[in-house]
Amino acid sequence: MTTQTAAPQRLNGFEVQAMTQTLDALTQDRTLARFEFRAANEWLGGGMNRSTIQGFFGAGAEDTSRTLPFNYTSGEPPVLLGKNESANPGEFLLHALAGCVTTTTVLFAAARGITIRSMTSEVVGDIDLQGLFALDPAVPPGYRQIRMKLDIKADCSDAELDDLIEFVHSHSPVCDTIRRPVPVVFERLKKK
Amino acid sequence: MTTQTAAPQRLNGFEVQAMTQTLDALTQDRTLARFEFRAANEWLGGGMNRSTIQGFFGAGAEDTSRTLPFNYTSGEPPVLLGKNESANPGEFLLHALAGCVTTTTVLFAAARGITIRSMTSEVVGDIDLQGLFALDPAVPPGYRQIRMKLDIKADCSDAELDDLIEFVHSHSPVCDTIRRPVPVVFERLKKK
Repeated sequence: MTTQTAAPQRLNGFEVQAMTQTLDALTQDRTLARFEFRAANEWLGGGMNRSTIQGFFGAGAEDTSRTLPFNYTSGEPPVLLGKNESANPGEFLLHALAGCVTTTTVLFAAARGITIRSMTSEVVGDIDLQGLFALDPAVPPGYRQIRMKLDIKADCSDAELDDLIEFVHSHSPVCDTIRRPVPVVFERLKKK
Repeated sequence: MTTQTAAPQRLNGFEVQAMTQTLDALTQDRTLARFEFRAANEWLGGGMNRSTIQGFFGAGAEDTSRTLPFNYTSGEPPVLLGKNESANPGEFLLHALAGCVTTTTVLFAAARGITIRSMTSEVVGDIDLQGLFALDPAVPPGYRQIRMKLDIKADCSDAELDDLIEFVHSHSPVCDTIRRPVPVVFERLKKK
């Protein structure tokens, strides 16, 4: 009988065995990597609307793990003609970015055997509403730049952490969606 | 004493006078159009993290209208190693897009004197996780394409609605942020 150090069962809150199995499955059948995420939205009046998120396609099948939908409301502050019903869509984009960068960081840290002790971040996006209101065609309607400050405490060297962050910057799905031009196709259902 | 039709005080839930005043103020002092939105995020373990959203800069001042912060949690489904704690960041990006397109539509409809009776939408994003997992350098990590179906009931012609939707496609801030390459700058606080 030999004694050896057991591999950790969990790292950064992820089950290591499940993580390895997922990556092995994807590597063996690349079609499993195709996902389709969805949201349905309903206008509730003024700058208030609500999204319902439940099903998605992924890993070769329609997901059925969510027995209830998630609901998220968008609003606007008074200075943008709303009543602070909720954060506004531009702020939700920053939440999506922060969440994706965080999850991508701790997941790939786990894959590299790095223990993350804590991670916080601050995201700031610059936007000039001259673009939205078509006051100046040279001003884009969306964010001009987004800056993200990352505070990560981890059991690795600064160089290893810099290497991890560089990977995350180019591989976080939401970060990549923002950094790269992604086509958005509209289809309007014709009035009855 | 003359009789005349009074202009509507509210259109699509927006106060018409406030809308006109806002646009007039922006037109007269373009620096008021500069906004800075923010989110702070904290990792809670595994694929779960939470964003706090409260203050922002805009219309020439730091906003103080929100006495309490908004909090939004990100999670992941089991197939992506989570426990369905909440929608995932990629889904929040779709919520941000749907919310922004909806608000931009009803706001500019109001500006054009168009009454929106109802608006719902469905957003679908295609993503291939071979990109995230660096299994194929030719596959981008983010969305490859996002499609949005819009169902709008409005008191205007189909041609007027098509013209409005075309404006929204190119002027919605979140839609523009996704369609256009936007720089995301990371700054990592060095370990103590």
